[in-house]
Amino acid sequence: MTQRAGRHFLQIPGPSPVPDRVLRAISAQVIDHRGPDFAGVGRQALDGMKSVFKTRQDVIIYPASGTGAWEAALVNALSERDRVLMYETGHFAAMWKKMAEKLGLVPEFIAGDWRGGADPDAIEARLRADRDHEIKAVCVVHNETSTGSVSPVAEVRQAIDAAGHPALLMVDTISGLASIDFRFDDWGVDVAVSGSQKGLMLPPGISFNAVSDKAMAASETGGMRRSYWDWREMKASNATGYFPYTPATNLLFGLNEAIAMLHEEGLENVFARHQRHGAATRAAVRQWGLEVLCQRQGQESGVLTAVMMPEGHSADAFRATALKHYDISLGNGLSKVADKVFRIGHLGDINDLTLIGTLTGVELGLRKAGVPHRAGGVDAAMAVLDQTAAPGIAAE
Amino acid sequence: MTQRAGRHFLQIPGPSPVPDRVLRAISAQVIDHRGPDFAGVGRQALDGMKSVFKTRQDVIIYPASGTGAWEAALVNALSERDRVLMYETGHFAAMWKKMAEKLGLVPEFIAGDWRGGADPDAIEARLRADRDHEIKAVCVVHNETSTGSVSPVAEVRQAIDAAGHPALLMVDTISGLASIDFRFDDWGVDVAVSGSQKGLMLPPGISFNAVSDKAMAASETGGMRRSYWDWREMKASNATGYFPYTPATNLLFGLNEAIAMLHEEGLENVFARHQRHGAATRAAVRQWGLEVLCQRQGQESGVLTAVMMPEGHSADAFRATALKHYDISLGNGLSKVADKVFRIGHLGDINDLTLIGTLTGVELGLRKAGVPHRAGGVDAAMAVLDQTAAPGIAAE
Amino acid sequence: MTQRAGRHFLQIPGPSPVPDRVLRAISAQVIDHRGPDFAGVGRQALDGMKSVFKTRQDVIIYPASGTGAWEAALVNALSERDRVLMYETGHFAAMWKKMAEKLGLVPEFIAGDWRGGADPDAIEARLRADRDHEIKAVCVVHNETSTGSVSPVAEVRQAIDAAGHPALLMVDTISGLASIDFRFDDWGVDVAVSGSQKGLMLPPGISFNAVSDKAMAASETGGMRRSYWDWREMKASNATGYFPYTPATNLLFGLNEAIAMLHEEGLENVFARHQRHGAATRAAVRQWGLEVLCQRQGQESGVLTAVMMPEGHSADAFRATALKHYDISLGNGLSKVADKVFRIGHLGDINDLTLIGTLTGVELGLRKAGVPHRAGGVDAAMAVLDQTAAPGIAAE
Amino acid sequence: MTQRAGRHFLQIPGPSPVPDRVLRAISAQVIDHRGPDFAGVGRQALDGMKSVFKTRQDVIIYPASGTGAWEAALVNALSERDRVLMYETGHFAAMWKKMAEKLGLVPEFIAGDWRGGADPDAIEARLRADRDHEIKAVCVVHNETSTGSVSPVAEVRQAIDAAGHPALLMVDTISGLASIDFRFDDWGVDVAVSGSQKGLMLPPGISFNAVSDKAMAASETGGMRRSYWDWREMKASNATGYFPYTPATNLLFGLNEAIAMLHEEGLENVFARHQRHGAATRAAVRQWGLEVLCQRQGQESGVLTAVMMPEGHSADAFRATALKHYDISLGNGLSKVADKVFRIGHLGDINDLTLIGTLTGVELGLRKAGVPHRAGGVDAAMAVLDQTAAPGIAAE
Repeated sequence: MTQRAGRHFLQIPGPSPVPDRVLRAISAQVIDHRGPDFAGVGRQALDGMKSVFKTRQDVIIYPASGTGAWEAALVNALSERDRVLMYETGHFAAMWKKMAEKLGLVPEFIAGDWRGGADPDAIEARLRADRDHEIKAVCVVHNETSTGSVSPVAEVRQAIDAAGHPALLMVDTISGLASIDFRFDDWGVDVAVSGSQKGLMLPPGISFNAVSDKAMAASETGGMRRSYWDWREMKASNATGYFPYTPATNLLFGLNEAIAMLHEEGLENVFARHQRHGAATRAAVRQWGLEVLCQRQGQESGVLTAVMMPEGHSADAFRATALKHYDISLGNGLSKVADKVFRIGHLGDINDLTLIGTLTGVELGLRKAGVPHRAGGVDAAMAVLDQTAAPGIAAE
Repeated sequence: MTQRAGRHFLQIPGPSPVPDRVLRAISAQVIDHRGPDFAGVGRQALDGMKSVFKTRQDVIIYPASGTGAWEAALVNALSERDRVLMYETGHFAAMWKKMAEKLGLVPEFIAGDWRGGADPDAIEARLRADRDHEIKAVCVVHNETSTGSVSPVAEVRQAIDAAGHPALLMVDTISGLASIDFRFDDWGVDVAVSGSQKGLMLPPGISFNAVSDKAMAASETGGMRRSYWDWREMKASNATGYFPYTPATNLLFGLNEAIAMLHEEGLENVFARHQRHGAATRAAVRQWGLEVLCQRQGQESGVLTAVMMPEGHSADAFRATALKHYDISLGNGLSKVADKVFRIGHLGDINDLTLIGTLTGVELGLRKAGVPHRAGGVDAAMAVLDQTAAPGIAAE
Repeated sequence: MTQRAGRHFLQIPGPSPVPDRVLRAISAQVIDHRGPDFAGVGRQALDGMKSVFKTRQDVIIYPASGTGAWEAALVNALSERDRVLMYETGHFAAMWKKMAEKLGLVPEFIAGDWRGGADPDAIEARLRADRDHEIKAVCVVHNETSTGSVSPVAEVRQAIDAAGHPALLMVDTISGLASIDFRFDDWGVDVAVSGSQKGLMLPPGISFNAVSDKAMAASETGGMRRSYWDWREMKASNATGYFPYTPATNLLFGLNEAIAMLHEEGLENVFARHQRHGAATRAAVRQWGLEVLCQRQGQESGVLTAVMMPEGHSADAFRATALKHYDISLGNGLSKVADKVFRIGHLGDINDLTLIGTLTGVELGLRKAGVPHRAGGVDAAMAVLDQTAAPGIAAE
Repeated sequence: MTQRAGRHFLQIPGPSPVPDRVLRAISAQVIDHRGPDFAGVGRQALDGMKSVFKTRQDVIIYPASGTGAWEAALVNALSERDRVLMYETGHFAAMWKKMAEKLGLVPEFIAGDWRGGADPDAIEARLRADRDHEIKAVCVVHNETSTGSVSPVAEVRQAIDAAGHPALLMVDTISGLASIDFRFDDWGVDVAVSGSQKGLMLPPGISFNAVSDKAMAASETGGMRRSYWDWREMKASNATGYFPYTPATNLLFGLNEAIAMLHEEGLENVFARHQRHGAATRAAVRQWGLEVLCQRQGQESGVLTAVMMPEGHSADAFRATALKHYDISLGNGLSKVADKVFRIGHLGDINDLTLIGTLTGVELGLRKAGVPHRAGGVDAAMAVLDQTAAPGIAAE
C-alpha cells in the first residue's frame, strides 16, 4: 500500500478527531493521583463535566469506555429483576437492552423503526398502564449513534410526569453530549451516560454518569452487587478531588483541555455549529437523491447523518472505496441496517471546510463506487453554509 | 508557590514515569477502532501482552484501571457465594478481599503480618482441610504494592497441586508484571490481573487479565452476571484484533510502544535491573538505620521498598517535606501502616542515576524533616551499583 | 473573538501544514550534537537530502531559513563584484537580486512579466553576448512562490551549454523541492537553495544548499569573506555526520521523519499528487472566471496557484474575509501584485479532500466578500479529481 | 547495544535538557508567519527576550545557532579592517576571534590561561594605550563554556569608561544568559550574543543579539556588507511583531513557553539555583581530589564546571565509560584542553536530585574507569545542598 499524504478524514460518529491541544495535554507526564497536585486536576474535571452536563447534581467519571458507564447506570440505580422501559431507537438502544438482560434486569422494549427518536406518547401510555409502578426506570437514547435520530428528552420527562409515574429517567447521551443541546437539570434527567470520544473530542477511555439526587438516593439503599461502578465510593472520594481507585490521569488532563475549548467556543455556539453542519449534510444527501435514515422532522441529528444506500448497493463496499480513494473513514450500518446505510460523522472538532471535504469524499466515493446519485450534493451543502451565519462570528 | 525547575521525581510505586517515546505514541491522532487499520494495533497489543505475561493462553485488555481487572477476574471465573481463599499480604490483598465480599463471594482470609509474601504452606494446609473442594479459587498478590513483598507464586501453585485441590490460582500482578519475573504458563496461574501504570510504563487507564484455558472454561459455564467484563465477548472479538466495545485506542498505541521498549531492553534485563535497584535501595535503608517493612529474605520487592519510620515520627510529614524541598513524590503507608511507612518506587523507566537521585531525596528529606537516621545511605547504594554489573552492559 | 473549532486550513505557499508524525519527531528530547548517537542522525539527514535533491554531490544543511541558504549560495560560490545573470520571475527573484546587490555582487536582471518561468532563450542570448565570460553565475528561481510559475531548469542548463558559457547555474528551489520534479545532477545544477517549510513539510528553521563539484571547487579558491555559511567547514565536519557548529537538532529529527514519509509515498507519487492538485485548482479558477497569474502553459506550478482579482477588488480584503469566516489562510500578493493577487497553496501534506476544503474556502470567501465570480469552481475541481487517478492508488 | 532504560542524563553545557512544556509548545502546528495571529507570538518573543536580557533597547532574534549571532554582532557593528580587542578566556573566545579574522576584522587577543574570566585591568591598560581609538570594540565572553569561568562584565564596562575609550562592549553570553546574572542595560553592554539551547532550555536553532542604541547607530552608518544578519531590516519588521524573512516559528512557540517558565520561577531564583548547584559541584570535585579548571575565586561558573583529569588519564575515555555505564553525557575538553578536562553541565531545567544523579554518574564513572580519586564527592555535594536553602522555597 502506498503511504497516504495529508490528514485522514475521520468522519465516523466517534471517535471524532482529537484536537492538537488535547493531544498535547494528554502527552504530559503522569502525576501522582494521590499527591497534592492532583486534587486540582480532579476537581476541574468534575466541575467541568457538571458545566457540560448542565447540572448541579453529581457527575461520576470512570476509567472505562461508554459501555462501562451504561453498566454503571444500571447497576447503581436498579436492582436485579427490576423492570425497565426502554425504547428501540436503534442499535445502541438494543445493545443497552441486551446489557440490561445480561445484568438481570427485565427490560421491556417499545419497538421503533430506527427512523426517529423515542416517542413520548408511547412511553406515557405504557407508564399509565403500569399502575403498580413496576417499571423502575425509563431508558432512552438521546442521540442514537446508529441512526442519527434525536429523542426529545424533555418531552419524555413530561410524559413520565404526566403519567404520574415515579420511574427514573435514564438517558444515554454518549454521542449527544457537547455536540447537541443537553440539559440534565432542566430536563429532569435522573441518570445520564456519556463518553469521551464524541463531542468531548478526546480519545476513548473515560466515561461519565450524571446522577440526580433521586437516583443517588436510590443507589444508596438499592442497586445491584457492584464494586468498580459504585457511585457511593466515587462520590465520597470526589468530594476532595480524588478517586477511590486509579483514574485515567492523562485522559483527565485532556478532558480539562477539551472542556476549556468548549467553553472558549461557547456551548451554544458548539450546538449551533453542529446543527448547521447537520443541515448542510442533509441538503447534500437530498441533492444526491439518497434518503436520510431519520425521517422524523426535527429529530435529525447534528452529530451524524445516516444515509440509506440505493437498493442493491452495498454500503460497506462504498465505504471501502471512499476510504481507499479519498482517505476518509465513514461509519458503517449496524445490525438491522448493516450494509444498508453509511453514517457521516460531523461532530467534534470540525469546521465548515472539513465538512465540505467530508461531503466531497462521499460524493466522489459514490461516483467511484458506481452508486447511482445526482451530482451537486457538495454544492447544495455549500449553499447552506453560505446562507447561514457561522455561529460565533460577528457579522461584518 | 514557586515554580519548580527540573523534572519531578515520581518515585511512587505507580504510576511510574512514562517514557517520552510512550507519551509521543499516545499523542498520535485517534483512529477508527472498527476500521481496517485498527486490527494490526489490536493484535499487536494482544500478542505483545501474551509475551509479557509469558503465556500462550488468553489475554484480555480492558479500558479500565487495575481495580476493574480485579473485578473482571472474580466475576468471570467465579459464581456468587463461591468460597475463595485469599492471603493477607497487605493493603491491596485486603482491598481485593473487600471487593470479593461486595461482589457476593465468600472470601476466607489467611491472616498475614504484612511483612512478606503469601505462605504456600499455610495455603496447602488450608486446601488439604477443604475436602469437599468448596474453595473455588486461591487468590494471592504477586507483588504487594503496599508492603514491597513478593509472593512465591510458583510455590503456591505447587502447594495447590500437592493438596490435590482443583481451585483456580488467581494472582494480582498489577505492580509486578514487567518489573519482576512473572511466568503465567510456567507457574500454572489461572487468572492474572495487571495494570498499565507500573512496569508497563503507561499512564493508568487500561488493565489486563491473563486467563488459562481452565479458567476460560469455568467462565463459559459459570461466572456471575456480567457484561462489561465478560471474557467471552472479548475473546470472540479479539480473534480478529478488534474489541466488542470501544477500546482506549491511544493507550493501546502507547502499550505497543512500551512493549517494544521492554523487548528492546530484554525482559530478563528489565527484571535484573529492578532487582539490582531494590538491593541498592535496601542497602541505603539499612545504612540509614531504618527498617525495611518486608522481613522475609528473598521476598523483598524489586519494584518498591517500604520503609518503616522511627517510632514517633510521621511518615506523611516526612514525605511532605521531601516533596516540598526536593520535588520527589514518595508513596504513603496504607491503612494499617498509614503514616508509619513510606514507600520508595524503583520501577519502570528508571536508571542508576535516577535511583541515586531518588535516594538522595529520601536522605536529604530525612535530614530536613529531622528524622533520626545515619548518613551514608546514598553511598551505600552507590557501592551496590558499583559492585554489580548493570544488566545488559557488556564488560569492557 | 470566538475560538474557532476544527483545524485551521493553512493553505499559503509555505509553511505548509506539518504532519503529526513530523511534529512528534520534533518533540523528542534534544541530544548531544557532539555525542556518539548524533552521527547517525546527521548522516541520515545529509544522505536523505541527497536523495531528495537527486544528487550524489554535496548537500549542506544550515540552521537558518531559506533566505540564509540564498546568502550561502552567493557568498560561497561568488566573489565580490562578480557579475551574475538573474531572471525576474517574480518577487522572490527580485529579493534574491536585492540580496546579491547588498552582498556586493553585480546582478543583471532579465526583466520578466511575473507570468511565467525564466526564459532559456533570453538567457542563452545574453550569455552568448558575454564573450569575456564576465558573468559568473546564472540564477533562476525554480518555483516562483510569488507567482506560481515554474522555470524550465533543464532548459536553462541547455541554454548555458549551448552558449558555451562557463557560468554556474544557481537555482532557488525553496518552494519547489519535494513538491515538483527537481533533479540536481541530471539537470546540471551547480548550486540549489531550498528550505524546510514547503515540500519538506517541516516548520521553518533549516535550509539547504546542494553543491556541485564545480561550485565546491569555485568556493575553495574563491568566494567572499564568510564564516557561518562556509561550505568548506561544513563539508569537512559532515563527512562524519557532525556539524562545525550547533545544528538545529530537533528540526533534523523532523527532517529525517519527513524524508521517510516522502519515500514511503514515493517522490514520483508526490510530484504527481502536486500536479493533479494544481490542475484541479486551475480548473476551479477558470470556472470562477478568474485569471491564473501564470499564463505560460506548462509552467503552472503544482505547488501554488496565484489568482488575479477582478479589477477594483482587494485581494487582501478577500483574504481577510475568507480567514474570518472559513478559518483559511491564503497567501497574499507580493510587491508588484500586492492586493491584486491571492495565492492558494496546495503543497506538502495535503490530500484531495483538503484541497476541496481549500477551494471551498476560496469560493465561499469570494461570495462572502462580494467578489464577482461564477459558482461551480469546487465542482470543476472535483471533476478533475474524479477523472484523474490519484497517484499511488492501484485501480480496482 | 542494549536499549537503555530511564531518562538519559544530558549534562553537557548545552544543549541542556528541554522541559516537557517546551517540547509540547514546539510541537504545535505551524502558523502563517505573515498572518494576523503571528504578531502576538513575535511580540511576546521579542519583549520576553528583552526581559531576559534586562534591556529596554533592541533584541534581534535569528533563525540560526549561536555562531550566527556571533557573526551578526560583528558584521553589523563593525567594518572590515576594524581593530577589535578580544580576550582569550578559552576555546569559544578563540573561535570568535577566528571568526573575526575570517570576516576581515583585525582582532587583537589578550592572552589568557583559560582558568578565569577576562581581566578588566588588562583591558583598561590596552585601551589607555590606544590613544587614537583604533580599537572599535572590546569582545569578551561572559560565561566561557569551555572552561567554566565567568568574566566580570560590569567591571569590563568600568574599565572601558575609566580609559575614556569609545569602543563598543560586545559580550558573548551564549551560555550565561538565563542561568547566571546578566544585565544588558545596567552593565552598559553594547552588543550581547546568546543562543537558545542553554539557559533558555530550548533545542538549538534560534539565537539572539541584544543591541544598544549606540551599537544600532553604528550599524546604521557602518557595518560590513550583510543581508541575512542585517539588524536594520529586522528592527523595522519587528516593530509590528513580524520578521523580514521566515522565522523559526515553532522554536518561537517554545521560546515563549520557556520565558514564561523562567519568570514563573523568577530570574533571581534561577540564578541562585545555578550558583548553588555550581557550589555543590565544586565541593564534589574538591572531595574527589580533582582540580576545577577555573582557579579565579568568584569567577567559577554556575552553568558548568570543567574538571581537570589527573595526569596520564584520558578525559575522553572516562566520559565514554560514564556514558556507557551510567547513560550520562558529559562535555569534552576543547582544543588546548582536549582530553585533559571534562565538563559537567548544571544548567537549565535541572533540580537538586538531578544534580546528585549527575555527580553520581561522574563519581561512579571515575571508579569504573579507574581514575584515581577520593570517594565522597556526592556526599560533599549533598552537604552543600543540605546546608543552603533552595531558592524560592519558603522556610517552614
